[in-house]
Amino acid sequence: MNTRDHCLALDARDPLAPLRDQFVLPAGVIYLDGNSLGALPAAAPERIAQVVREEWGHDLIRSWNSAGWIHLPQRVGDKIARLIGARPGEVVAADSTSVNLYKVLNVALALAGGRRVIVSERSNFPTDLYIAEELLRARGGELLLLEHDQIGPRLRQGDVAVLMLTQVNYRTGRLLDMAALTAAAHANGTLTVWDLAHSAGALRVDLHAANADFAIGCGYKYLNGGPGAPAFVWVHPRHVDRLPQPLAGWMGHASGFHFAPGYAPAAGITRYLCGTPPVIGMAALECGVDTLLAAEPLGGIAALRAKSLALTDLFLRLVEQRCAGHSLVNITPTEHAHRGSQVCLTRAEGAYALVQALIARGVIGDFRAPDVLRFGFTPLYLRFVDVWNAVEHLHKVLASGEWKDARFNQRSAVT
Amino acid sequence: MNTRDHCLALDARDPLAPLRDQFVLPAGVIYLDGNSLGALPAAAPERIAQVVREEWGHDLIRSWNSAGWIHLPQRVGDKIARLIGARPGEVVAADSTSVNLYKVLNVALALAGGRRVIVSERSNFPTDLYIAEELLRARGGELLLLEHDQIGPRLRQGDVAVLMLTQVNYRTGRLLDMAALTAAAHANGTLTVWDLAHSAGALRVDLHAANADFAIGCGYKYLNGGPGAPAFVWVHPRHVDRLPQPLAGWMGHASGFHFAPGYAPAAGITRYLCGTPPVIGMAALECGVDTLLAAEPLGGIAALRAKSLALTDLFLRLVEQRCAGHSLVNITPTEHAHRGSQVCLTRAEGAYALVQALIARGVIGDFRAPDVLRFGFTPLYLRFVDVWNAVEHLHKVLASGEWKDARFNQRSAVT
Repeated sequence: MNTRDHCLALDARDPLAPLRDQFVLPAGVIYLDGNSLGALPAAAPERIAQVVREEWGHDLIRSWNSAGWIHLPQRVGDKIARLIGARPGEVVAADSTSVNLYKVLNVALALAGGRRVIVSERSNFPTDLYIAEELLRARGGELLLLEHDQIGPRLRQGDVAVLMLTQVNYRTGRLLDMAALTAAAHANGTLTVWDLAHSAGALRVDLHAANADFAIGCGYKYLNGGPGAPAFVWVHPRHVDRLPQPLAGWMGHASGFHFAPGYAPAAGITRYLCGTPPVIGMAALECGVDTLLAAEPLGGIAALRAKSLALTDLFLRLVEQRCAGHSLVNITPTEHAHRGSQVCLTRAEGAYALVQALIARGVIGDFRAPDVLRFGFTPLYLRFVDVWNAVEHLHKVLASGEWKDARFNQRSAVT
Repeated sequence: MNTRDHCLALDARDPLAPLRDQFVLPAGVIYLDGNSLGALPAAAPERIAQVVREEWGHDLIRSWNSAGWIHLPQRVGDKIARLIGARPGEVVAADSTSVNLYKVLNVALALAGGRRVIVSERSNFPTDLYIAEELLRARGGELLLLEHDQIGPRLRQGDVAVLMLTQVNYRTGRLLDMAALTAAAHANGTLTVWDLAHSAGALRVDLHAANADFAIGCGYKYLNGGPGAPAFVWVHPRHVDRLPQPLAGWMGHASGFHFAPGYAPAAGITRYLCGTPPVIGMAALECGVDTLLAAEPLGGIAALRAKSLALTDLFLRLVEQRCAGHSLVNITPTEHAHRGSQVCLTRAEGAYALVQALIARGVIGDFRAPDVLRFGFTPLYLRFVDVWNAVEHLHKVLASGEWKDARFNQRSAVT
């Protein structure tokens, strides 16, 4: 069954295959890093050029009205909402993931009625932990880092203010059960903050069905919004108007362009804006989100998720089949219910060099310290035959020992 | 002396005239709003296309190293430093002006040894006041808004934590004396936070000579960085390593890409970064800053400042000469030492409609509620004859009464 021809046959009958044409992908590259930086949407260069030459260059300041710049955070936010089970008017695109996390954590803590403990996962993405750590250092409180299976029991102590989790772990690819964990949190008087960095655009996220409280996420991973794209923020309607967030800039004001004295937060999610929107980056992000919305007539996120699982299943099977005896250990959950859209392998020796040797062969994944080879699978543009070819390269790199070459062992600034 | 031919003669002998060719300016437009959104640098479309197609599209995640994305905040920051009297390694480009203000205000307050009063100017830009107001609401403290000439006496009460000022007032064009006000602040144990939104790139700013404590500024006004460009932040070396700033994201970590547990702020201004840099916007900003650095062989900021004053002098003289009897009142200081690079006129009736009527004629300034007609003068691309033509249009709009047309009285989202 697991042959190259079988992979080609899977591609031939893949109803999502045409979505690949929405992207510019360099020749000779198998891109397994869309979970770090999504590929370039084919529509983006022209759209960005239009924003730059026409909206900025020709229409200048008038574009705040004529090109609708002022509504970009809401317009792009409404499109993202369709991918994460939020409603129109509930999401804005703005700032970075870390800055948005700071906003919602502040509000969640303020709503927590005196509780000062934030619980998170020990292997959560560091920037999330840094933001929480410094916030608690300033305000007083404790950041408690647990393994994912210790969270439920700890919540039952009844003193946790906020449960802050990333739905899919960046390092292991583990998918957490948002609905169950949110229910457990609520049962113990705890609010939830969900980071959707590795889930929005990759799998079904349903914030309302899970009854989540706050969510933030990244624009440049599965949303394909370009390097350093604006991030997004969602707050459940039951909380959104209760408090202002601390970054109280003019774009979140009830009437920012009236230059009114005194801060008065806008109604709804608009109050989670702060400064002037980054227009060019927002245009790129909109092109990225549109590549996902284009899947809606083909089954949308559910269809993308099914293909993603088929891709990661195939990868795991092929690694087992072709790379046995090479000391690779899979740390990604094998059950679909617990797996995101990535596969993470570890190797005690040479993980960094293996990733570099693969990159030299055009198979782009990434390394995460100390020993993780991370491969992301973006169903919008990855083919089954890409998975086959990637594993063949991995096999050759291991079998030949070419990863031991000195040039693959030199660390660069970003690894 | 004040004739169109004289203006043409001034342009003919203007040593800065060639700098105009660095910009794409639409035909038929006299752009007097570079203080709100700088014009498009001619180099920007191609550079942005390169970032999009090559760095993002082709090189993908590898560009963090190969294209130096990871160093963009510092690289662009070092260029901005040359415009504001800061040294290499002291400035980063990041986030928005409002977000950067939040960072430095937090740190300044924390360094203030128990004092809880922030003094600012009543007519300071609203977003600055909002940020301070909400910060003090959360932390406890008072935001005291004064007229500029009341500041010195109030500082002498000895209880002011932070003096937060915008060097050039957005509404009146008044230029404050940074060195004198900083000295007065320090003499009374007060730290200073300077917003350079309307001064960086427009006139000589010398943060070290003024011995300022903190500064932030905007990328999309006189720096020509494009709509919603990243902003910048500077902290005096005597303060920069004393405390972490509150938005403690991974880009400000001492070793962000090591994914280390526990927040450890980087040394120097890098700790004022938070999330992933907006790469495309940063590339546009770099093109904008480069248009100012191109003036260095021609006398740099000092030469630009001299031309800016000549332009605003001319505008004021021509308005007096051509628009007398039309109830325009100049609220911009006439002394050079107190004037930024803009002229603000008020009119009790029709200020909004007058600005719209001028825009319809291709003379783009802006309106600031309730009654201000604001004209910004960017010496990089404005000619003396542009000033002549602009005032001729203003005269015609007033003399003909065309501003009373209904279409000029309809308010839009952004005014």
